[in-house]
Amino acid sequence: MSERDKSAPPVRIAMLGAGTVGSSVAKLLARHQHDLAHRVGAGFELVAVGVKDINKPRVGIAQSLLTQDLESVALSGADILIEVMGGIEPARSLILSAMEAGASVVTANKALMAEDGAALYAAAERFDVDLYFEAAVAGAIPLIRPLRESLAGDRVTKVMGIVNGTTNFMLTKMDEEGANYAEVFDQANALGYLESDPSLDVDGIDAAAKAAILAELAFHTRVTLADVYCEGIGNVTKADIAAARDMGFVIKLLAIAELVGTQEKEDGIVVRVHPAMIPLHHPLANVRGSFNAVFVQAEAAGEMMFYGRGAGGDPTASAVLGDVVAAARHRVLGGRGPGESTYLGLEVLDIGRAHTRYYVNLDVQDRPGVLAQIAHAFASHGVSIQVVRQEGQGSEAGLIVRTHSGSEAALKATVDQLESMDEVRKVVGVMRVEGED
Amino acid sequence: MSERDKSAPPVRIAMLGAGTVGSSVAKLLARHQHDLAHRVGAGFELVAVGVKDINKPRVGIAQSLLTQDLESVALSGADILIEVMGGIEPARSLILSAMEAGASVVTANKALMAEDGAALYAAAERFDVDLYFEAAVAGAIPLIRPLRESLAGDRVTKVMGIVNGTTNFMLTKMDEEGANYAEVFDQANALGYLESDPSLDVDGIDAAAKAAILAELAFHTRVTLADVYCEGIGNVTKADIAAARDMGFVIKLLAIAELVGTQEKEDGIVVRVHPAMIPLHHPLANVRGSFNAVFVQAEAAGEMMFYGRGAGGDPTASAVLGDVVAAARHRVLGGRGPGESTYLGLEVLDIGRAHTRYYVNLDVQDRPGVLAQIAHAFASHGVSIQVVRQEGQGSEAGLIVRTHSGSEAALKATVDQLESMDEVRKVVGVMRVEGED
Repeated sequence: MSERDKSAPPVRIAMLGAGTVGSSVAKLLARHQHDLAHRVGAGFELVAVGVKDINKPRVGIAQSLLTQDLESVALSGADILIEVMGGIEPARSLILSAMEAGASVVTANKALMAEDGAALYAAAERFDVDLYFEAAVAGAIPLIRPLRESLAGDRVTKVMGIVNGTTNFMLTKMDEEGANYAEVFDQANALGYLESDPSLDVDGIDAAAKAAILAELAFHTRVTLADVYCEGIGNVTKADIAAARDMGFVIKLLAIAELVGTQEKEDGIVVRVHPAMIPLHHPLANVRGSFNAVFVQAEAAGEMMFYGRGAGGDPTASAVLGDVVAAARHRVLGGRGPGESTYLGLEVLDIGRAHTRYYVNLDVQDRPGVLAQIAHAFASHGVSIQVVRQEGQGSEAGLIVRTHSGSEAALKATVDQLESMDEVRKVVGVMRVEGED
Repeated sequence: MSERDKSAPPVRIAMLGAGTVGSSVAKLLARHQHDLAHRVGAGFELVAVGVKDINKPRVGIAQSLLTQDLESVALSGADILIEVMGGIEPARSLILSAMEAGASVVTANKALMAEDGAALYAAAERFDVDLYFEAAVAGAIPLIRPLRESLAGDRVTKVMGIVNGTTNFMLTKMDEEGANYAEVFDQANALGYLESDPSLDVDGIDAAAKAAILAELAFHTRVTLADVYCEGIGNVTKADIAAARDMGFVIKLLAIAELVGTQEKEDGIVVRVHPAMIPLHHPLANVRGSFNAVFVQAEAAGEMMFYGRGAGGDPTASAVLGDVVAAARHRVLGGRGPGESTYLGLEVLDIGRAHTRYYVNLDVQDRPGVLAQIAHAFASHGVSIQVVRQEGQGSEAGLIVRTHSGSEAALKATVDQLESMDEVRKVVGVMRVEGED
């Protein structure tokens, strides 16, 4: 930066929200002032912070900057608006107002990006400002930037990630300690890991929002939360986890977005969130506790994984600040960050079109010919069996089947038929298997 | 891109080198033309390709573009010069000429970036062009961009990676198949994995070049290959690997760059490459075969890991094209990518200042009091013992010691003293231990 004008006027920052993340952002902005000035070529000035309750004490933010008039923050004339208040409205309107007033926007708002990302991309384009949202998915992990920029010359074929730390914490506890779902739910609750509406975590809704954002970026196709097939972890039992471990697998809540079709021509994409078994040697299998990781497959680059902290004030603030630096550099040096568009416009297909493998745990009659009947049921739907294991005898007779890859529709139809068969006393468990070639 | 002028003139690309990587770049440029135009707002045109031998057949590159006059390629007036020829000269001079002529540069040249990165950063700044080099470290893995951009608002404290696929392939084979060093060397050779000068791989020189590049970026400090402490894998034995596995560790060739000092004020950085034991539960432990991965620790973001293919034509070309898209966007929309400077100018300290743990395998006299004498040797250098295990008896008596964290200098002095003690028949093995808290 030797020849850059160090006396450039400071970049003016306004912020909406001053909770855990906002406070960390303010702290890091202050702590790294000197470094940031070097990296940007100008200093930073925090000019306004919009909060719901001006009387709540805030650490590290001058009282004089606080206001409850959020609209005035959006229209403060700042170069960059940081939005860490969350929720759809008024966040969306405020962001759009700020963009129209010429501010670049850095947001950590996954709900908003999942619902209306495409509209925000279009607004950023129209008003010629930056829109960055690294913190909206997988917290501190640089993931959005690699997807938008590093892989811009490649063709992404699949994104598969552990993007909800709370459920990963719960599943890890069940796996490591043999705890059951109710116990780990209580632990997560006691530790304050659960959202105030726990359904957002355990029913997979938070993960589905992130899946929509990742799918939209990876496939340049409009994807919203409503497009994402979603199953939570509420039905995962101790027995499922033990069975997985016996076979050399571990159960994770996965967010998956992938191309479906031939290599030459895709038919569309499927975006889904559900628990799945993955082999212990898979890079995602070792992602424990509240960590997040996202596995990306691209045609030329091959397999990649990005791992790190998915939540927390400081990690999220680190991602926000990385975006702020990028947007600030454009203010000082000109230019604009990557735009996004949904130009590919692929069809978002039904979960039935996904290709996966099934694990099926059956309670069966113990009599000759049962295995043949069951094998026939799989074959009649074109589903090929990879492994069968018989367990127990008599009234305890069990059969565990792992299939080769097939369409979700065929696998589902097979299970429906199994449920109707006399030979099958009960379908004890069904789970998708991912991460095997 | 709805409102962008689709009729913008194409971005003109020149390329130096058309080997494995160059051919892949040309192929991907052609294959993704339509997508790239959408992502950039203009098409691409390959205008010149400089090669050593114009008569060698090249797939997918028109003969009319080829020339042996490399200077003419650098001065072709292209918007972007892709340099994938490798080596220090003439690559450096050609890059500098191209920059002076106004071209942005995308390079995969690790040797050059490690030797003279700072001069290239300065030239890019002076001529107001982009310099991108994602492909120079860890091939396809988006790593440089996260370090330069995503973490720009954070403070990196440590970078630790597996950045040489060939040695990781060799160590993985030794671990999984119980092979010895000579056997896996021959296998790697037969598979064509080794550089034409194998020393670049097995002596850690390739990894050290990458460590220098990563250290320079992470700590904004001039670091060249000569600053990197470097030990290769030639002394790693089957016995070391078996001992590691017994203790729940695996041996990897690590490239490490880290801050040394207190949390408030660093004394400098140490940059080193050597084999080390890491615990099996560490995210790097599962990085097998020719894969690469880099673990990054930052103050706010916490621990992160980036995993993927470290070499190969298509993976490297994917990284090159991501950079080309970024540079091309700046041509179309204005602006410039992140600059780099070595403004922090930290001291690059001697390896003796590193903090690590040691594993020490001793062949000792089997008589009362030996353990006490040895424990005293460690204590006298202020090195704290974490685990001791006695093995065998009589002439086979062995002692395995794992220490707590200490300075490399103290650990080294301890081992020197052990070697001089009567009680110690032989220091059978010494290895650093990383990745434990």
